[in-house]
Amino acid sequence: MSLIDLLFGRPLATDEDRAQRVGVSSGIPIFGLDALGSAAYGPEAALTILLPLGLLSAQYIVPITLAVIGVLGIVYFSYLQTIEAYPSGGGSYTVATQNLGTFPGLLAAAALMIDYVLVAAVGIAAGVGALVSAFPILQPHTVALCLAILVAITIVNLRGVREAGLFFMAPTYVFVGSLGLIILAGIWRTLASGGHPLPIVAPPKIMVPQAGVGLWLMVRAFSNGCTAITGVEAVSNGVPAFRDPNTRNARSTLTAIISILIILLVGIAILCRAYHITATIPGRTGYESVLSQLVGAVAGKGIFYYICIGSILLVLALQANTAFAGFPRLCRTVAENGYLPFAFAERGRRLVYSRGIFVLAILSGLLLVAFQGVTDRLIPLFAVGAFLAFTLSQAGMVAHWTRVRGPKAAHSILINGAGALVTGLTVVVVIVSKFREGAWLTLLVIPAILMVMYKVRRHYDRVSSEIAHSEPLAVDRLCPPLVVVPIERWSRIAERTLRFALALSPDIIALHVDHGEHRENLSDRWDELVIQPTKNAGLPSPKLVVLQSPYRLVVTLILRFVLELQRKHVNRHIAVVVPEIVEKHWYQYFLHKQRGKVLSLALIFKGNQRISIINLPWHLDEQPAKTPQPVLENSKVSDEAA
Amino acid sequence: MSLIDLLFGRPLATDEDRAQRVGVSSGIPIFGLDALGSAAYGPEAALTILLPLGLLSAQYIVPITLAVIGVLGIVYFSYLQTIEAYPSGGGSYTVATQNLGTFPGLLAAAALMIDYVLVAAVGIAAGVGALVSAFPILQPHTVALCLAILVAITIVNLRGVREAGLFFMAPTYVFVGSLGLIILAGIWRTLASGGHPLPIVAPPKIMVPQAGVGLWLMVRAFSNGCTAITGVEAVSNGVPAFRDPNTRNARSTLTAIISILIILLVGIAILCRAYHITATIPGRTGYESVLSQLVGAVAGKGIFYYICIGSILLVLALQANTAFAGFPRLCRTVAENGYLPFAFAERGRRLVYSRGIFVLAILSGLLLVAFQGVTDRLIPLFAVGAFLAFTLSQAGMVAHWTRVRGPKAAHSILINGAGALVTGLTVVVVIVSKFREGAWLTLLVIPAILMVMYKVRRHYDRVSSEIAHSEPLAVDRLCPPLVVVPIERWSRIAERTLRFALALSPDIIALHVDHGEHRENLSDRWDELVIQPTKNAGLPSPKLVVLQSPYRLVVTLILRFVLELQRKHVNRHIAVVVPEIVEKHWYQYFLHKQRGKVLSLALIFKGNQRISIINLPWHLDEQPAKTPQPVLENSKVSDEAA
Repeated sequence: MSLIDLLFGRPLATDEDRAQRVGVSSGIPIFGLDALGSAAYGPEAALTILLPLGLLSAQYIVPITLAVIGVLGIVYFSYLQTIEAYPSGGGSYTVATQNLGTFPGLLAAAALMIDYVLVAAVGIAAGVGALVSAFPILQPHTVALCLAILVAITIVNLRGVREAGLFFMAPTYVFVGSLGLIILAGIWRTLASGGHPLPIVAPPKIMVPQAGVGLWLMVRAFSNGCTAITGVEAVSNGVPAFRDPNTRNARSTLTAIISILIILLVGIAILCRAYHITATIPGRTGYESVLSQLVGAVAGKGIFYYICIGSILLVLALQANTAFAGFPRLCRTVAENGYLPFAFAERGRRLVYSRGIFVLAILSGLLLVAFQGVTDRLIPLFAVGAFLAFTLSQAGMVAHWTRVRGPKAAHSILINGAGALVTGLTVVVVIVSKFREGAWLTLLVIPAILMVMYKVRRHYDRVSSEIAHSEPLAVDRLCPPLVVVPIERWSRIAERTLRFALALSPDIIALHVDHGEHRENLSDRWDELVIQPTKNAGLPSPKLVVLQSPYRLVVTLILRFVLELQRKHVNRHIAVVVPEIVEKHWYQYFLHKQRGKVLSLALIFKGNQRISIINLPWHLDEQPAKTPQPVLENSKVSDEAA
Repeated sequence: MSLIDLLFGRPLATDEDRAQRVGVSSGIPIFGLDALGSAAYGPEAALTILLPLGLLSAQYIVPITLAVIGVLGIVYFSYLQTIEAYPSGGGSYTVATQNLGTFPGLLAAAALMIDYVLVAAVGIAAGVGALVSAFPILQPHTVALCLAILVAITIVNLRGVREAGLFFMAPTYVFVGSLGLIILAGIWRTLASGGHPLPIVAPPKIMVPQAGVGLWLMVRAFSNGCTAITGVEAVSNGVPAFRDPNTRNARSTLTAIISILIILLVGIAILCRAYHITATIPGRTGYESVLSQLVGAVAGKGIFYYICIGSILLVLALQANTAFAGFPRLCRTVAENGYLPFAFAERGRRLVYSRGIFVLAILSGLLLVAFQGVTDRLIPLFAVGAFLAFTLSQAGMVAHWTRVRGPKAAHSILINGAGALVTGLTVVVVIVSKFREGAWLTLLVIPAILMVMYKVRRHYDRVSSEIAHSEPLAVDRLCPPLVVVPIERWSRIAERTLRFALALSPDIIALHVDHGEHRENLSDRWDELVIQPTKNAGLPSPKLVVLQSPYRLVVTLILRFVLELQRKHVNRHIAVVVPEIVEKHWYQYFLHKQRGKVLSLALIFKGNQRISIINLPWHLDEQPAKTPQPVLENSKVSDEAA
């Protein structure tokens, strides 16, 4: 078993695709980690905005959470319908493209791409950040740890989508299970104590209110809380990765994810209120995350606390994986429409879209290095991408129902319209409230991505119209090429090159560059070596051209000669035979001049349609090939060879 | 004027060589920096060994310096004769090879290469180290400064040997001039005061003697003092770089360098004795270099002190340049004998041996980075290389005189024999006394270099015996190749590839790989597209072979097919026509699959003598080439084209 097989698994045949698909239980960790993990920061993000209200904030978190859950519900119903209507996947991009047109579709794709790249980087950085707070000795290795986790996630994803699900199952279910237990126990105690439970470990001292309740404050808290909704679109992007019946499996998975998320959000809100838990100021001494306070209050800080916090850290880090599931598929769909390089649409040895995985790994790796693994400021940004995609997707669904009609159309238009409105408003609120903190960057990057996508498509359009051809082969006016044979000195290589040229064409020019260092008197011997034998055999004689090279250039002179020749013979193809010594070992590379390689590249890039290059490899230490014989039975290729 | 011209100067033609040669005054800085700069550390190295003698050390430095000068004299006379006998340069390597044989010659070459690489690294590090002591604020940038100086020296040397001399003239002559003035002034004062001059700035307090005078101590002090002799061989290596009459110019230059060096060494020794200057312990507080004490004692620490110390620093740093003059020439000579890659023997655009310069820059750059710019421990090591080369060179001269005979032979044998003996003893002393401090490394590296050189030569011998050929061209049994044409889909590219193949050979196999993703029904249309038109034109019809690829591999399948075909047709050449889309801009590279490039490389490296590759470039956005016409007047190539 090779190292590559060990790391990435054996290659999978195209028809093994079906066995690689996933069901509901492994679908939840694969497509739900992002959504579920956001329960860990959504409520905290809302409570942080409410900080000026002091103790009151624990009261207001319940209605705000309910509002967020309302949006979540609308998004949920919208995506259920999307999965039904688009079983081949594609999510926001497909829906927006098919119902609103190319531009809105690409806009959604660009927004989602930004979202995915940021989620991957932010998730890993958040996990490592928490790990580093727990073990300060690891602090100097933050970036290295981030990159190590990134590499691990990349490898797991290159092994294939199914293995990724198995790998992430355990932490996801530990996270959901332990948080669920905490919520159950907390609500039980709240009910038992008549609504006023005593915390086992008390939350930090509550601040004095510094501001009154205002609409703008509530709107901002709501928009921050909406980060809990990001990641929901992953399922609808990945419908084809589900086992048959894939539409039903995908819907069940989405329902399970949303239900769990709602339970977690409601539970957290109720317990915050019951235990009077508010946010603390991030970056100040005494900071403690809301979930940490909550677990401490309900269960104390024993072993269970560490299991729970540990699983939160793991889920935060691994939610990067959702991006790895979504990004390559999105790129595939866009590439199939010609707006990204075709390579994104090709499946690798394990049937995953390897190039998308590589690109995502590289981009998020660059972000991690650029921000030195501290990416807190990027968190609000990915909400912009996610909600822009939501808005376009739901606007697309409105158009879909308007066109399709049917008994439930009016009802659906109402749900999707409301969704589009609410998520659209959220985008505006997030951009306005976070503009200075970096949201402006998103407004620059999205147009740049769009421009690249349009340029790629235009290039492909031009190429395909240039090479498109459906006529049968034209066989008129065939003519052997004019063959140019560069000769350094008379050797077996030179002889073989000339023989090969003689077998191809009657018009041969042998080219020798005299650069004044090692004089070879090729001209004097040409008659004896080449002219006489060819004349005697009744063959056309190759002509020798000697070029003087005072500046010791060789490749440039040959290139110039060939280009000149091509201008003089406007109707001929020119073939340059480049003999090349092939080394048996890589270190022998430095022992030869590699002029052949340089000449080939120069001719390809500086040449044109009428100049072709024939590489004639000379393999060192190989028994020289026998002189070719005109064996008649070979002039027709036998079937076995095929 | 392009950036490259600005940095490296315009290219020089081969016949401009003469104008690039140097005379005596610019020859001294080019070939003498190493030797002259060693006056700055030779006496100090000897005095450091004598430290345990306390004040007595200032007494003993005079006889030790005289002994060193004795060796220097012997080495000088030996090299004068070498220059006379070997006007084409090559120094120790040439002399040892021609008189003692291949192995001693290569041993000398390996020793000198180590010497040069170490001199380049140590010189730069010493200069930067002194600069950093003067300006501690630069301390964190030590490595960056070293590399910046290395790059500057490399660029200056790539501009050509003459410009390097002009560039280094000023600091060399300031160094020699200011140190000479100090010595004159000091001796004048010593004489005026009757041998007991009063120092202007007194040297640091003299230590109490801790040991008695012993033979081993004297031998070690002498061997350390001999580092003052290193670098003398540079002139004899570079004789051809001198203006005509080059032998005389080279001898004058060597004489000038040695005379100046002797004056400096004697002056320093006398003044150390007169002013009671001893070494101080390196790395301890209160350390001050011997030259700094000496200049302070004679001239005080005013502006002149800083000019003098500044020029010492500069000369130390720039003595790396001697290595840049010597190393590429040495590599050239070794390469011309086939023991190093031929590339070392080719002159670049400015008539210097560019590859040798690059290799030296890279090796010494790696040393600087590995040792973080602190290379003190390497200083004794380069004496091993230098003296090993001296010894072999002089032993070679002994053999030379024994063979040549003549009136002065006996006299010369005596001088060279004594030189070989003394320098040989010095090598032994240096290796023994510095064994633990790193001399053992030299004993490992030299055999490694020798092994590489022998392997390179064996490779070249094998290749040249493999390709050697002086018979006239064999023209029997010429036969067109079997042409394989991979076709992805029917397009203008496919049509052009087939047309090209039809013009070359009657035996054509079109190869289509079906990898199950984008099905192209090529087989169904083959008859209509290709068979019918060729049949109607009376041409042989290309056969279509479709390969199934369940693992979505394309290149591997084509390669396997071609290798199989080659096994079946043992007497045929096989030519694979690889169409390749050539992008107009580099960023378009990512838009195409580059399968053509991968296939070409796979065929070259996995193939054999009988498989050649025809690259048929398709240039995007180019007006499609006109269909070739059989223009009769072109079938014979006209003279103007050449």
